[in-house]
Amino acid sequence: MKALVFHEPGRISWQEVPDPDLEEVTDAIVRIDTVTICGTDLHILNGDVPDVRPGTVLGHEALGEVVETGEDVRGVRPGDRVLISCISACGHCRFCRERAYGQCRGGGGWILGRTVNGTQAEYVRVPFADLSMHPLPGTAEGPEAVLLADIFPTAYEVGVLNGRVGPGDTVAVVGAGPIGLAAIATAEFFSPGRIIAVDYATARLDAAKRIGADAVASADEDPERLVDDLTEGLGADVVIEAVGTPQSFETCTRMVRPGGRIANVGVHARPATLHLEELWIKNVTITTGLVDTYSTPTLLSMLAAGRLPASLLITHVFELDQMEEAYDVFSRATDTGAIKIALGGPIRPLATREE
Amino acid sequence: MKALVFHEPGRISWQEVPDPDLEEVTDAIVRIDTVTICGTDLHILNGDVPDVRPGTVLGHEALGEVVETGEDVRGVRPGDRVLISCISACGHCRFCRERAYGQCRGGGGWILGRTVNGTQAEYVRVPFADLSMHPLPGTAEGPEAVLLADIFPTAYEVGVLNGRVGPGDTVAVVGAGPIGLAAIATAEFFSPGRIIAVDYATARLDAAKRIGADAVASADEDPERLVDDLTEGLGADVVIEAVGTPQSFETCTRMVRPGGRIANVGVHARPATLHLEELWIKNVTITTGLVDTYSTPTLLSMLAAGRLPASLLITHVFELDQMEEAYDVFSRATDTGAIKIALGGPIRPLATREE
Amino acid sequence: MKALVFHEPGRISWQEVPDPDLEEVTDAIVRIDTVTICGTDLHILNGDVPDVRPGTVLGHEALGEVVETGEDVRGVRPGDRVLISCISACGHCRFCRERAYGQCRGGGGWILGRTVNGTQAEYVRVPFADLSMHPLPGTAEGPEAVLLADIFPTAYEVGVLNGRVGPGDTVAVVGAGPIGLAAIATAEFFSPGRIIAVDYATARLDAAKRIGADAVASADEDPERLVDDLTEGLGADVVIEAVGTPQSFETCTRMVRPGGRIANVGVHARPATLHLEELWIKNVTITTGLVDTYSTPTLLSMLAAGRLPASLLITHVFELDQMEEAYDVFSRATDTGAIKIALGGPIRPLATREE
Amino acid sequence: MKALVFHEPGRISWQEVPDPDLEEVTDAIVRIDTVTICGTDLHILNGDVPDVRPGTVLGHEALGEVVETGEDVRGVRPGDRVLISCISACGHCRFCRERAYGQCRGGGGWILGRTVNGTQAEYVRVPFADLSMHPLPGTAEGPEAVLLADIFPTAYEVGVLNGRVGPGDTVAVVGAGPIGLAAIATAEFFSPGRIIAVDYATARLDAAKRIGADAVASADEDPERLVDDLTEGLGADVVIEAVGTPQSFETCTRMVRPGGRIANVGVHARPATLHLEELWIKNVTITTGLVDTYSTPTLLSMLAAGRLPASLLITHVFELDQMEEAYDVFSRATDTGAIKIALGGPIRPLATREE
Repeated sequence: MKALVFHEPGRISWQEVPDPDLEEVTDAIVRIDTVTICGTDLHILNGDVPDVRPGTVLGHEALGEVVETGEDVRGVRPGDRVLISCISACGHCRFCRERAYGQCRGGGGWILGRTVNGTQAEYVRVPFADLSMHPLPGTAEGPEAVLLADIFPTAYEVGVLNGRVGPGDTVAVVGAGPIGLAAIATAEFFSPGRIIAVDYATARLDAAKRIGADAVASADEDPERLVDDLTEGLGADVVIEAVGTPQSFETCTRMVRPGGRIANVGVHARPATLHLEELWIKNVTITTGLVDTYSTPTLLSMLAAGRLPASLLITHVFELDQMEEAYDVFSRATDTGAIKIALGGPIRPLATREE
Repeated sequence: MKALVFHEPGRISWQEVPDPDLEEVTDAIVRIDTVTICGTDLHILNGDVPDVRPGTVLGHEALGEVVETGEDVRGVRPGDRVLISCISACGHCRFCRERAYGQCRGGGGWILGRTVNGTQAEYVRVPFADLSMHPLPGTAEGPEAVLLADIFPTAYEVGVLNGRVGPGDTVAVVGAGPIGLAAIATAEFFSPGRIIAVDYATARLDAAKRIGADAVASADEDPERLVDDLTEGLGADVVIEAVGTPQSFETCTRMVRPGGRIANVGVHARPATLHLEELWIKNVTITTGLVDTYSTPTLLSMLAAGRLPASLLITHVFELDQMEEAYDVFSRATDTGAIKIALGGPIRPLATREE
Repeated sequence: MKALVFHEPGRISWQEVPDPDLEEVTDAIVRIDTVTICGTDLHILNGDVPDVRPGTVLGHEALGEVVETGEDVRGVRPGDRVLISCISACGHCRFCRERAYGQCRGGGGWILGRTVNGTQAEYVRVPFADLSMHPLPGTAEGPEAVLLADIFPTAYEVGVLNGRVGPGDTVAVVGAGPIGLAAIATAEFFSPGRIIAVDYATARLDAAKRIGADAVASADEDPERLVDDLTEGLGADVVIEAVGTPQSFETCTRMVRPGGRIANVGVHARPATLHLEELWIKNVTITTGLVDTYSTPTLLSMLAAGRLPASLLITHVFELDQMEEAYDVFSRATDTGAIKIALGGPIRPLATREE
Repeated sequence: MKALVFHEPGRISWQEVPDPDLEEVTDAIVRIDTVTICGTDLHILNGDVPDVRPGTVLGHEALGEVVETGEDVRGVRPGDRVLISCISACGHCRFCRERAYGQCRGGGGWILGRTVNGTQAEYVRVPFADLSMHPLPGTAEGPEAVLLADIFPTAYEVGVLNGRVGPGDTVAVVGAGPIGLAAIATAEFFSPGRIIAVDYATARLDAAKRIGADAVASADEDPERLVDDLTEGLGADVVIEAVGTPQSFETCTRMVRPGGRIANVGVHARPATLHLEELWIKNVTITTGLVDTYSTPTLLSMLAAGRLPASLLITHVFELDQMEEAYDVFSRATDTGAIKIALGGPIRPLATREE
C-alpha cells in the first residue's frame, strides 16, 4: 500500500510500504477514506518529537472502513464506517478507568503516527480497536467528521470543559487557529454571553467571526483592553489558551477575572512566567491537558444534528496520493490560508453542504 | 482603650487610642478576649503592604464578646461570644452572592487591620457584623478557636478544598508553618492515604508529624524523590503550596501526578516559572486564592467536636498588653520555635486540654 | 393606592388600600410598572394556601421603579428600574449563605403576596431590597422581563440545572404550561440533542414547538413510547416534571434512562408512588426544589442578549387596573389560551419585538 | 470440583460439578480461597430472582488465586492473589466508559452467580477478568478483604458518595445490617459531625456503635425525633436507606433536612409512597443505584492502610465445604447474630488482627 513515511527531520515521502496485519486480538485493520494533517505532524517533520523513529507512517486522525478485526474486537465489524481517534486506550489501566485515556499506561495514549504506524496511509492497524474508534452515525458522513479525531475533542475537553464555560460567561479564546476555532464552536454549546477571539492574523479573526466569535482583537493591539472594556474592568470568566507560547499564556493570565478559569490547550516548548505576585489572591484556576477523547460520542451526535460547524474549518481538499502537496500547503498556512485540510473522500462538494 | 498601632515600617506600639464607635447600622463593637498575630502582620510591619496607613490598629483575627450592635445587626446580640473572621462581607455584591467573600466588592474583603482598625486592641468595630463574625459554640471556648479566624479556613478552603483531597490520596504539603500545619490537619477530614510534609526546619517537620503527617522530607534534600518513591514514580494527587516563593511553587509542580492538583496557598511577592513544556500534557489543575471563610461554621463544629487539633499549633501565650513582646517572639520564629501565639484569654492551662 | 386584595377563598378585588411605607432599614418602596399572575395566585384564590390572610395584597413578580430606600439599602437607588424577585433573602442565615434563598430562615423566602403585601398593586414594599431585587439592564426593558421574577429562574434552577442538562442529552419535559415552556427555553442553553414535550393540550404542544421542542407527545397517548423510540429503548437523560400530579411524576420515572435525572418542578398536593422495585437498580437521581433565584442575573443577561424567548410566553396584556379581568382570563386558560399575562407597561407592541 | 448449586427455590447443595474452562480470551480461572454469602443469595434461594436457572453455581464475592488466563488478559497472571468483584465489566459499552459498570450493556454487570456460574465453589471462571478482578495488595491478605467484593463498594458508592457526605454533616443510616454498617464505616472517610444508626435489632445497633455510629435509635421508637433533637429540628444532611422496605424509605424522607440528600442502597421489592406534597419544596435529592465498583481500588488501599474496619463485620468463619451450614447460619441471622460470614482461608485468628 501507499503511506506517508517519516525518514528524518525535513524529509517525508508518500511511498509504497507493506500492508498492515493484525498483531493483537484487540486490533482492527481499517481502510482509510479521509485523513487530515495536524500541527503536530509538522512538529514531527521538524524533528521536535524525537520518539518518532525513521520509517514510521505518520497521522493520527482518519475516517475509514473496517476491513478486519481481531478475535476480541466486539464493538465494530468489517464493513463499519468509523472515526479513528488520535488517542488509543487500553481500557484497563487506572487512567483509562477514569476516562483519562490520553494518560493511558497500558500501551495506549497518543501512539498512532508516533510510536506505531499511523493513518496517513491506505490502510492502518488500529490497536485497542474497541476503545480507539467510533462508529460513524449515518448522518455524519462528510469528510469534516475527521476533525472529530483530534481538534474538536481537544478544544472541547481541554478548553471548554476544563474551563467550565457556562451560560452568560465572557469567554476569551487566545489563538484562532484550528484549535481556537474549534474551541469557539464548542464553547457555543453552553451559551456564553460573548466570545472574544484574539490572534495576529486578520484572516483567522475573520474565520473566528464566521464560527461564532462576538468580538475579535488583534494580538498586537492590547487585547486585554477589549476584555476589560467589555467586562467593566472585571476580566473574562474563562480564557482558553490555544497558541502555546509564553507570551500568549501570559496574556491569558492578564485577561482572567477574579474567580475565573484559564484552560491551556496550546502545546508549549518553553516555560512561561506565572505572575503569582498578582494571581495568588485572585482565586483563579489554571488547567492543562492532553485530550482524552471521552467526549467524542457527544461531538459525533452534535455533528450529526448539524450543530457543529466543522466543515467551515476545512479550507482545502486533496486526494490521498496528493499527501506531499497537502503537507506543503498546510505548512505554509500563512500564505495559503489553510486551516484544516481533508485528504481522500467521500468528498462532497463544498457548495452542497450547509451548516 | 489600648491597641497595637502601626506607625511606619519597623515601628508599632501598644498604646492608648480612642474607643471605637458604631458607624454603620451593620456594625458591631466587640470587646476582645483573644487575638493572635499573623505572618501578614509581620509583612505590614516590614512595610510590604502599602495600603496600611500610619495610625492603623493592626490585627484581623480575634475572639471576643459583643458589646454593642447597629440597628440592622440581626445575628448577634450584646453578650454573645464570637469569632471575628479575617474577611468581612457586604453580602450583596456578585462575589458575596457566590460566597467568594474574600473578593467582596461592596466594602468588605480583608479590611480589618488593613484599611480599617483591627483586632489587636481592647475593642474593635466590626463592619458587616452579621456576615463577618460567627457565634462561638459553648464547647469551643478555648483560645485556640482564634485560629479559625484565618489560618484554618485559609488552609482548608484554599489548600484542601481547592486541591480536592479525597480518600486514599497522596497529599504533599510544601511548607510546614502555621498554614501548612493547618492544611495537614484539615486534609485529614478526607482520609487521604498519606500526607507528606516538606520544610527546611526540623522543628516544623516534627510539628507536622504531631499534627498528622505520615512522612516528612527536608526541603534541602530532593523532596520530590520521597514523593516519587512513595507513589511508584507517579507523583502526588494533591500538592499544597504553603510557602510563597518561586522555588517552593516549582517544587510543587514537580511533585504532582498526571491528573493531579496544585493548590497554592502561599502569598507570593515574585513571579514563578511555570514549566508548561512539561505540564501542558499532564492534565494538572493549579488553583490560587484568598480565603473566603465560607467554611468557618463547619470548622467551628469540627473544633467543638474535638476533631481539629488547633491547640497543638499554639506555642506561646501572652496577656493582651504584652503585644509588643509577642510580636518580637513571633517575628523570631526560627529562634523561638513560635508557630502561633495567643494573646489574652480565657486561657485554659494546656495540660487540661485534650484533642 | 390601588391593589389586588385577597378577601377569602374565591374573592379578590382591585381596590383602594393604604400606600406602603418603609418599615426596616433594608426595605425599598417600588412603583410597579409591570406585573403578572402566577398559577400560585390561583391556588391562593382557591383557598389552597392557608397562610395567606384576608386583606393581603397578592403578587410576587414585578418590574418597577424604586422610589424610596431604607438607610441600609446599598445596591439600588430611587430612580432605578428593577426586577422584583419572587424570593426575598435575608442574606445572613445558613441557607442564604449557601444561596438557597428560597429556604431562607431569616424572614425571607417566598413572602411577597403571601405573608406580606405583594406586587399586584401600584406600589410595594420590598423587604431585604438588596438581595430581593435586580437592577434591569437597559436592554431588558420589555414587559417580558417580568417572567424572570419567577417562572424562568424556577424552570432553569429547579428543572434544567438540577437535572444537569448537557450537550447532546435527550430531555423530556412533562407539562408544557408556563414552567414547562420556560424549562424548554432554558434547557437550550446547554445544547441538548433533543427536547421532547409532553402535555394534554395541543395548543401547549404547539407553543412548545415554537419555543424549541424537537418532538411533542400527547400525555394521552403513551408518551413513554416516543421517548423509547427516540432513544433506542434507553430512556431520557433528563426528565423535567412540570405539572405537579402523581400521574405526571410517575410518567417521568418511566421515561428516565439508567443513570438519568428526574427534576421535579411541579407543585404537588398529593403523594406519588415511587416504584423503587424498578428504580433501586437504575442509578437515577430525583431532585425537588423551590426556586432560589440565584440564577436571575444570568437570566437577565441572556434576556438582554436576545437569547431568552420570554416574550413568546406572553399571550395577553392588560392595564394594571384591569387586574380582575386578567385573573379571569388567566384562570380560564384552557378556553382563553392564556400562558402568561402581563399587566401594566411599558408595553411595546408585540409586532416590533423579535426573539 | 465442589460447588454450591442452586436447584430450585428452597434447595441448594454443595456438590461435585465440572471444573470451569476458559471460554473467551478475556476470561480467567481463579482458585477460590475465601467466599462469603450475600443477602441476595438468600433471595435467590427464596426464588425471588427468577433469572437464576437451576444448576447455577451461586456466589458473586471471593478472594482467590489466578490459575489460568485467556490470551487477552493483561492485568493479572497465574499466581496473582485477587479480589473478584460482584460486578463484571466489558469495558467498552457506553456505561462502562462512564464507569457505570453495574449498568454494563456488553455482557457484564451482575452476572456471577446469577447468569453464569459464581464463586461459591473451588474454582470459578471470571469473564472480563481485567476489569472484574483486583490484585490484592500484600497487606490486605485477611479474609475480610472479601467484603470489598460487594458490600463495601455498594455502601460507599451508592450510600456515602451518592449522598455526598461531608465534614461536619449529620448522617442518618437507616438499617444496621451489613450494608448499613459498611456505610457507617465508609462515611467516616469524610469526617461527618455525627452518624445516627437506626435499626430494630439491639445487636445491630451495638455493632453500629462499634463501627463508629455516634448515636443509635430503635426503628420502633420514632427515630425521626432523635434526628430532630440532634439537629435543632432541621433534619439530617444525608440519610442512607439500607433496608429496602417502603417503611424504611419513608422514614428516610422524614429525616432529611431541606437541601439534604437521601441515598437509597436497599433492594426494594415493592413501591414506596413519595410524599411530594411535602418534599417538592424542600430541595432534596434522592438517588438510587446498583454498585459500579469503581471505588474498589480506593477501598483496597484504605483496607491495606488499616483504615477500614472490615473484619469487625465478620461474625462467623467456616471451611469452604461447610457451605450448607454457613447458609443456614446466615439465613437465621436474628438468632445467630450473623452479620457477614467468611468461608475458606487463609483465616488468620481474630486475636492477631488489629484495626
